[in-house]
Amino acid sequence: MIRKAFKMKVYEDKIEEYTKRHNPIWPELKEVLKGHGVHNYNIFLDNNTCFLFGYAEIESEEQWNEIANTEICKKWWSYMANLMETNEDSSPVSTDLKHLFHME
Amino acid sequence: MIRKAFKMKVYEDKIEEYTKRHNPIWPELKEVLKGHGVHNYNIFLDNNTCFLFGYAEIESEEQWNEIANTEICKKWWSYMANLMETNEDSSPVSTDLKHLFHME
Repeated sequence: MIRKAFKMKVYEDKIEEYTKRHNPIWPELKEVLKGHGVHNYNIFLDNNTCFLFGYAEIESEEQWNEIANTEICKKWWSYMANLMETNEDSSPVSTDLKHLFHME
Repeated sequence: MIRKAFKMKVYEDKIEEYTKRHNPIWPELKEVLKGHGVHNYNIFLDNNTCFLFGYAEIESEEQWNEIANTEICKKWWSYMANLMETNEDSSPVSTDLKHLFHME
């Protein structure tokens, strides 16, 4: 199991909408995430900078990367694109963080 | 159980030392953390900005805050103070992040 963390950025005036769209997320998207080995997935907001921090426990990077190729993920990205900093394909601009420390 | 996240900042030229001092952390500090209901504690680094992202599962904020009053925590803070942005009492400057989303 890999403990993965990454940051993304939400627009300041879209925080409320971003939160609303995640609670709940689409059942089909949840199913795809679970089917690709994603567990204990959390997103946190830094109110001062509008950075989002994702933390997830994943079975493999390969499965994680596969999610991007699913129809439901592409649909989700399009739906969310007006709320966040995104790339040309509507995927969120995302930076992986380096795991430095773990305590059970 | 509360899923807690926060950010701190390490000095760029101290990243290696910061990592080294956490692997392993002092057994006495680990014991205090466990004794105060801290589980699955992880620290990640954003290489671009030197921000550290902490994620922990804690039993209560009260127990978490109590850690700051232990001798071993104060000793740890003094030991780490030359590596990080700190407050006057040597505690790391830390900003709590807001939990927006969770999936099991």
